[in-house]
Amino acid sequence: MIGIDIGGANLKVVDDSGTHIHYCPLWVDAPIAEILRPYAAGASDPAGVVMSGELADCFRNKQEGIAFIVNAVQQVFPRARFYGTDAAFHTGAVPELAAANWLASADYLRRRFPDAVLLDIGSTTADIIPLNQFDDLKGLTDTRRLQKGYLVYCGMLRTSIPTLIQSVDICGVGTPVSTEYFATSADAHLVLGHIGADLYTCDTPDRKEKTMEASLRRLARVVCADLDEIGADGALAVAQRFWDAQRALICDQVLAVARSCGTERIIVAGIGALLFARELGGTDLTSTLGMAADALPAYAVRELARV
Amino acid sequence: MIGIDIGGANLKVVDDSGTHIHYCPLWVDAPIAEILRPYAAGASDPAGVVMSGELADCFRNKQEGIAFIVNAVQQVFPRARFYGTDAAFHTGAVPELAAANWLASADYLRRRFPDAVLLDIGSTTADIIPLNQFDDLKGLTDTRRLQKGYLVYCGMLRTSIPTLIQSVDICGVGTPVSTEYFATSADAHLVLGHIGADLYTCDTPDRKEKTMEASLRRLARVVCADLDEIGADGALAVAQRFWDAQRALICDQVLAVARSCGTERIIVAGIGALLFARELGGTDLTSTLGMAADALPAYAVRELARV
Repeated sequence: MIGIDIGGANLKVVDDSGTHIHYCPLWVDAPIAEILRPYAAGASDPAGVVMSGELADCFRNKQEGIAFIVNAVQQVFPRARFYGTDAAFHTGAVPELAAANWLASADYLRRRFPDAVLLDIGSTTADIIPLNQFDDLKGLTDTRRLQKGYLVYCGMLRTSIPTLIQSVDICGVGTPVSTEYFATSADAHLVLGHIGADLYTCDTPDRKEKTMEASLRRLARVVCADLDEIGADGALAVAQRFWDAQRALICDQVLAVARSCGTERIIVAGIGALLFARELGGTDLTSTLGMAADALPAYAVRELARV
Repeated sequence: MIGIDIGGANLKVVDDSGTHIHYCPLWVDAPIAEILRPYAAGASDPAGVVMSGELADCFRNKQEGIAFIVNAVQQVFPRARFYGTDAAFHTGAVPELAAANWLASADYLRRRFPDAVLLDIGSTTADIIPLNQFDDLKGLTDTRRLQKGYLVYCGMLRTSIPTLIQSVDICGVGTPVSTEYFATSADAHLVLGHIGADLYTCDTPDRKEKTMEASLRRLARVVCADLDEIGADGALAVAQRFWDAQRALICDQVLAVARSCGTERIIVAGIGALLFARELGGTDLTSTLGMAADALPAYAVRELARV
């Protein structure tokens, strides 16, 4: 049995051998079938599939993206079943397939954690899902989830620094930032020690190294500086300011959703699980799901497809 | 006589035949010498050159960028003179060449408008320069200019929408935005009628058309929606919210600089000159410089190099 989650930037697979995460930015190139083919050998059951990659701007609209992704998967798994925002499986490219990956996670976890709020914090986004409201979650689009605070569009790796901060204090002087794509959340989390280079799986903005020094250099550029102009302390200040903003944005929203849904239990998945479980006093799902917590929708749709 | 301004995204030339703007994003490809070569034929005098492209992240640091750009120019114009932040000309790759293009504009214009504040609003940034403080302007780096409010890093074309707005009202519902690079200030200004497709000279984020409909589609994606989910009104709301934020950010800062420098006169250059001259009650330099107002540093360094 195999579970597949095709996002805009990452293609995730969970099968009997474990969790496999492929960096695959669809707007650059979309070799979906090529990536999946090696997994087809041993898989006799139909694959369970979810997606969110239909939003990638290589597609003119979501339906074009859904059709492309379904077609690519079916080249390798002709009997694949695609989970939709109606909480049902489909075999064709219906509109319900748009951005249903978070609902698959909810549908699976609500059986084990019926009263919890789930935070799934990945490379690009944070999904905040009140599992005790499952019936009200069905049919929600990404736009509706943004409005309800169930989708906070920032993540551990791919978020451009100036989308969350407008200025930073450098040596006591307020310094507005450049709006260029010079550094990402991955650079901030790397220099703060939240992730290692092995987890920095997306491209760097400047296509240069994933090292402490290269990340500091990218962060310095956010205030239009060379690293030797503001020093490591200055670049670290950019990272810390970003993290303060991101932490507040996500944690405040998780607590707001928990409050409004009358629950106190928080469970956390995704590559930021450890970090945010600590901040929120929640349960890191890595302790129960292992590496599959980094690919929760793929894991979940695999389990749902078994039924 | 020829004036050249090599930015990160645009290479601008002013010569006897007029103003020539080449979209040339250095981080993608940097065919500086190839672009300049056709201009060398008739130019017997040494070229006057300014730059800001050394900040592009294809270069490890500014000095590497300066050396690259100087070398490329010298291949075509061996006797080129490069204007620096010390308000002097140089023939080699000295550190003073970093981001001196705005100072060349100031150095030229202060003779004609000694008591004015200059706003030069281009594709990427807004330079706000109090011409009556010229001696204090010398030596300012981009970082110092950010701190002093003399550089506001947003522009008419290349600015990613979520760097200036965090949410937008769609049909009465507050809607946080995606932090993805889905749409630019050029899309906002195009759909609002501030620019035509001819002025949309940078690449589109999705590499698709520069039309009203394609821009609306990109703006809808900022709230994770297809255009038919939120309608043209929803996409226009994204554009209007961006423009409100950009207008406030730049105009407030121009007025603050004018106030602190004891001047009331405002002059405006760059591709946003008409728009912002109207907002600020200032003088659009296009009326005196013609098309050269869109390439003010290139025009200015050409004039300065004559002396």
